[in-house]
Amino acid sequence: MSDNNLDALFKPSSVALIGASSKELSIGNVIIKNLLHYGFKGSIFPINPKADEIRGLKAYPSILDVPGPVDLVHIVIPPPFVPEQVENCGKKGVKAIIINTAGFKEMGAEGQALEDDFLARAKKYGIRIFGPNCQGAINSDPELRSYCNFTFTFPKPGYISVVAQSGGVGAVIMQALYDMDIGLRMYSSNGNASDVSIHEIIRYYGNDKQTRVIVLYVESLSDPKQFMEIAREVTAKKPILAMTAGTTDKGAEASRSHIGGLAGSISMEVVFKKTGILFFSNQEDLCNAAEAFAYQPVPEGNKVGIITNTGGPSVIAIDELVRNGLDIPQLSEKAKAELKETMFESASIANPLDVVATAGAPQFKSAFEVMMNEKDVDSVYVNFVTPPFVDNESVARAFVAAAKKYNKPIVCNYMTDKQKWKSTTKILKEGSIPCFDFAETAAKALASLVRYQKIRLKPEGNIPQFTDIEPEKVKNIIDRAKAANKGMLSASEVYTVLESYGIPVAGWAVASSADEAVKEAKKLGYPLVVKADSEQIIHKSDVGGVVLNLSSDRELETAVTKMKNSFPVDDLKFFIQQQKPKGQELIVGAKKEKGLGHLIMFGLGGVFVEVFRDVVFNIAPLTDKEAEAMPGSIKASILLDGFRGQKGVDKAKIVDIILRLSQLVTDNPDIKELDINPVLATSEGVHAVDARIII
Amino acid sequence: MSDNNLDALFKPSSVALIGASSKELSIGNVIIKNLLHYGFKGSIFPINPKADEIRGLKAYPSILDVPGPVDLVHIVIPPPFVPEQVENCGKKGVKAIIINTAGFKEMGAEGQALEDDFLARAKKYGIRIFGPNCQGAINSDPELRSYCNFTFTFPKPGYISVVAQSGGVGAVIMQALYDMDIGLRMYSSNGNASDVSIHEIIRYYGNDKQTRVIVLYVESLSDPKQFMEIAREVTAKKPILAMTAGTTDKGAEASRSHIGGLAGSISMEVVFKKTGILFFSNQEDLCNAAEAFAYQPVPEGNKVGIITNTGGPSVIAIDELVRNGLDIPQLSEKAKAELKETMFESASIANPLDVVATAGAPQFKSAFEVMMNEKDVDSVYVNFVTPPFVDNESVARAFVAAAKKYNKPIVCNYMTDKQKWKSTTKILKEGSIPCFDFAETAAKALASLVRYQKIRLKPEGNIPQFTDIEPEKVKNIIDRAKAANKGMLSASEVYTVLESYGIPVAGWAVASSADEAVKEAKKLGYPLVVKADSEQIIHKSDVGGVVLNLSSDRELETAVTKMKNSFPVDDLKFFIQQQKPKGQELIVGAKKEKGLGHLIMFGLGGVFVEVFRDVVFNIAPLTDKEAEAMPGSIKASILLDGFRGQKGVDKAKIVDIILRLSQLVTDNPDIKELDINPVLATSEGVHAVDARIII
Repeated sequence: MSDNNLDALFKPSSVALIGASSKELSIGNVIIKNLLHYGFKGSIFPINPKADEIRGLKAYPSILDVPGPVDLVHIVIPPPFVPEQVENCGKKGVKAIIINTAGFKEMGAEGQALEDDFLARAKKYGIRIFGPNCQGAINSDPELRSYCNFTFTFPKPGYISVVAQSGGVGAVIMQALYDMDIGLRMYSSNGNASDVSIHEIIRYYGNDKQTRVIVLYVESLSDPKQFMEIAREVTAKKPILAMTAGTTDKGAEASRSHIGGLAGSISMEVVFKKTGILFFSNQEDLCNAAEAFAYQPVPEGNKVGIITNTGGPSVIAIDELVRNGLDIPQLSEKAKAELKETMFESASIANPLDVVATAGAPQFKSAFEVMMNEKDVDSVYVNFVTPPFVDNESVARAFVAAAKKYNKPIVCNYMTDKQKWKSTTKILKEGSIPCFDFAETAAKALASLVRYQKIRLKPEGNIPQFTDIEPEKVKNIIDRAKAANKGMLSASEVYTVLESYGIPVAGWAVASSADEAVKEAKKLGYPLVVKADSEQIIHKSDVGGVVLNLSSDRELETAVTKMKNSFPVDDLKFFIQQQKPKGQELIVGAKKEKGLGHLIMFGLGGVFVEVFRDVVFNIAPLTDKEAEAMPGSIKASILLDGFRGQKGVDKAKIVDIILRLSQLVTDNPDIKELDINPVLATSEGVHAVDARIII
Repeated sequence: MSDNNLDALFKPSSVALIGASSKELSIGNVIIKNLLHYGFKGSIFPINPKADEIRGLKAYPSILDVPGPVDLVHIVIPPPFVPEQVENCGKKGVKAIIINTAGFKEMGAEGQALEDDFLARAKKYGIRIFGPNCQGAINSDPELRSYCNFTFTFPKPGYISVVAQSGGVGAVIMQALYDMDIGLRMYSSNGNASDVSIHEIIRYYGNDKQTRVIVLYVESLSDPKQFMEIAREVTAKKPILAMTAGTTDKGAEASRSHIGGLAGSISMEVVFKKTGILFFSNQEDLCNAAEAFAYQPVPEGNKVGIITNTGGPSVIAIDELVRNGLDIPQLSEKAKAELKETMFESASIANPLDVVATAGAPQFKSAFEVMMNEKDVDSVYVNFVTPPFVDNESVARAFVAAAKKYNKPIVCNYMTDKQKWKSTTKILKEGSIPCFDFAETAAKALASLVRYQKIRLKPEGNIPQFTDIEPEKVKNIIDRAKAANKGMLSASEVYTVLESYGIPVAGWAVASSADEAVKEAKKLGYPLVVKADSEQIIHKSDVGGVVLNLSSDRELETAVTKMKNSFPVDDLKFFIQQQKPKGQELIVGAKKEKGLGHLIMFGLGGVFVEVFRDVVFNIAPLTDKEAEAMPGSIKASILLDGFRGQKGVDKAKIVDIILRLSQLVTDNPDIKELDINPVLATSEGVHAVDARIII
């Protein structure tokens, strides 16, 4: 099966519909109606054993009766009849099939069997299957105009390509772009995705020259690793704007019952982040950003010049721009001098530049020229209200001229009655100026361009391979534990594993008796902690199985003897560990996500993780750059630098631990969870002082 | 001057325009054009000494030449000519004047003089002044249709009244509602607000029976106390939805240069909260909520039933509803049984109720009936996509019937091409169903209704008056300090002030010598802290002026003697204080805001306030209910309940301290800042252990 030859799906020269119907409101009729209405340039073949013609097109009893080749077939008949029709399509030499019909895998074993059946037949003939339980695909190319979908929005040609796991959300986005009068390049929603996957579609869009920006809605990934690989390739070339849902517990529940998925919503955001996909938390911001990417260049930095002809909206814009990390630099003296020549007296010569409501084309033209020529301005944000006493068409032409002349993006909060100022609106639209009704939405769209640039500039880094490690030792421990059916490693196993990968741990030893403990204590030095080490004692600290602050042989002996008496178990040993001085508690951990590998977590321990959830995630294997970014990404990162007299922590050591942990779990996929909580950063260094490993 | 007789402004029977002009694009022409275009039912008098007629209306050389009475006058001529015209208006018996002209107070002393001049004349004649530097006022009442404004949006009648300090933002909101096809009742933007204030307008809207919801945009308040009093009265009757801007530093800067204001943006949000105003962070959410309030009842609680005919958007809706504090209850067994009878087999009988895409009017009708009759459902959220194979008009009629029959609100995420489904859209619109393009926006609009209900249910509480206090003592200390021109009270003064209002403090004393110190220590008990007490020593702890952990007479003597040698100042005394055991650090403070009174702050001390800014504010005087809500409102409130083995703190004591502090600063308006940082909650109780007072 060719991995990415989706041409038959997106560029079919002929489309047949198995289940074509004369009934006005049926899917089998709507799809043909849509193909005709959109002006499909290829051939359309309705397949219906009982009809001679449908919507004026000759109908055929079977796909096998169609004269000439068929690229793409829609199947809209009930599930039990699908495998046979796929077989017929194979005989006919069809290249791709969109199965709109629902009622397969998502309905249980019987549906699964039917799905397995049609997939096997498709594979036999090399047919790509799109769906089932899906909408279809659209290509707005004027030379093609394929509308293989039952939706009702007919986009004009454009530069945005959309792929949505949920057809409902896809349709909303398509309609929203349409309502914004923004063109679309390609559209697809592949439902259950039994064969053609979202990442294949993304690669296809990535290779499509007309597509400038990709919009993605996804609830779960069929193959997260493949997805990540492709996403990274594509985001290096063009932006992918994405949204997921099911992020609250209730939402996730609905999602699971909707289409079964693997990776949860937290890991989805981490996947987006790691691959350079821009994440959005609502559909509207996503669509607005798509417009900006489709029509404007990406700025070189985060410095924005503001031009406004009204007061309040500029206050709102600044709030939103600053909130989104944009910077509003002072104007140069040269710029100010120039503007003093051209602006009205009541104008405010600064950034924001208030040209005042009476400003016409000459004032706006000068404002644009000056802003665009400012070295310290990477993009221009405009608040443009259309005063009834101004020649707004000329102003709009000044906008467009400036946008054409310079390679810095412009976005506009265009405050008007679009019907009344139709010609002005048209000039801006045809001049590719993204216009938004609200200051907030315009500001956020511009901020998205800046976000993408920041991602592009971010150095990828290298995945370090530590060689001062003993991987065999770890393999043996895990193999033994697995063989013994143990879900959790013992304390001595955990610390051996960590040490084998060069992760510094508080010195430790295991003793069988008080005498042995005292002997080990000599090597470790006081103060010490002792823990009852037995598989039969679960919540050690609750039952007196942990004693802290031991500062002499006598105290150690007493503690061990007392434990011996308290726990009459046959495998009892004593885990002794150096007690480190107080310091900054950190938490470093790894958690396996099916299909994705390991999530790596870093944060501050104690209340910071439990109350504020102040932790950051990434996906193993981490590059050095990714690991280096983690300590600075938590909200309370200031505490790592030293705060209120406390000394700062050794960040290089923390990064080293994170990277070694990343390699450890990557080398050992059997590790399900690994928590070092806390890693203690003290005057004596950075050490793991408590840890657990679940396999 | 009548305080709230704004009838002449909002219900004029005649309007004159001083500065009327024949020039097409001038303000003096546009306002007349607007009045004519909107179909003003009263008389219009253009005033222009050189014209006979303007836009077909007879023009008069002066306002004094107009035959018959004039209620309202627009003045659009340059500032220097305004006072004289106000005088003429007085002679004519005009009741209100809208001064559109800019260039008064905001331009410096000369402008201020002109403003003072016209205000004095207006006062003499009892004329209300609206503006200057403003747009004007609109009333959509079909019997009146007064459009005294130079904007370009002509709203149809409705139930939403808007008042905006910024005309730019007001116009955007008016246009947005218009684009949403939502009616407006009244509109006003009063610019510099030299006379008619925003709170007067709010009271006017509050008393207007047609107004169901008030929309407010405000950057600063001219009289915060008056505003709060009126806002509280009005929000008890109908919702006020508000937005402010200038919340980031850059934004605040632009705001200050825009219209001078008093209260900053933090206090604005606190004002909104205290008075029951619903706060919004963007214009779009505000407009969407206004639509919901205009057309739907307020629900009794936060439990929502979801009906959907598409998958993905319902996942998104749930995320947004849950994020906004709404609850999605299970359906009752009775409801499920009923739905099993009426729904298609592929429907998902649960909450969310997925009626599936093929559902028609009978399915939707049943879905509505069942949801509306559920005891545990307070409101209904609908995702409605218009499948091409369904009779969507009938579905829409089922919506409307259900909304009419029951008193529970419905909002709808209506996913359609509104042009194509014009008749369906019309049915929903005429049936007062608020329809939104996105799941997120529909969910947020519904959440706003719930927020208002929660505010309405919140008990107001009483402002306690503590009598076990010694206010005279405090008055004397502050008077003495003021007389001595001291900006900051001394330690002994601070603790005396706190004790006088019954705020528990760690025991303290002041000594002049080591001997005296030891004598005082006997009464206080060890451990103790000693601080060098002198106005000449500023940063005590940096220069060795604070010694902690003193546990014996000898240690105390040594510390005092050392300080005596280190600080050769003539006013040196020794402030001795009990050192409390470790505990939970809290911060309680007050800060005076001009015109508003005191902001009261509560939070956790240390990193929580400095890194996470985890503090809450309210405005003094606090009611008992307001104070009781504060400890539970911080993010880390779980730490107050006891966390990880630490004991919980005595919240009643904290609330008592907050209330006493509130009374203290209310009784003593000279206190500019009061910080108790920390209040230490320990096993020994809750005590102020460090504090400062700035007057």
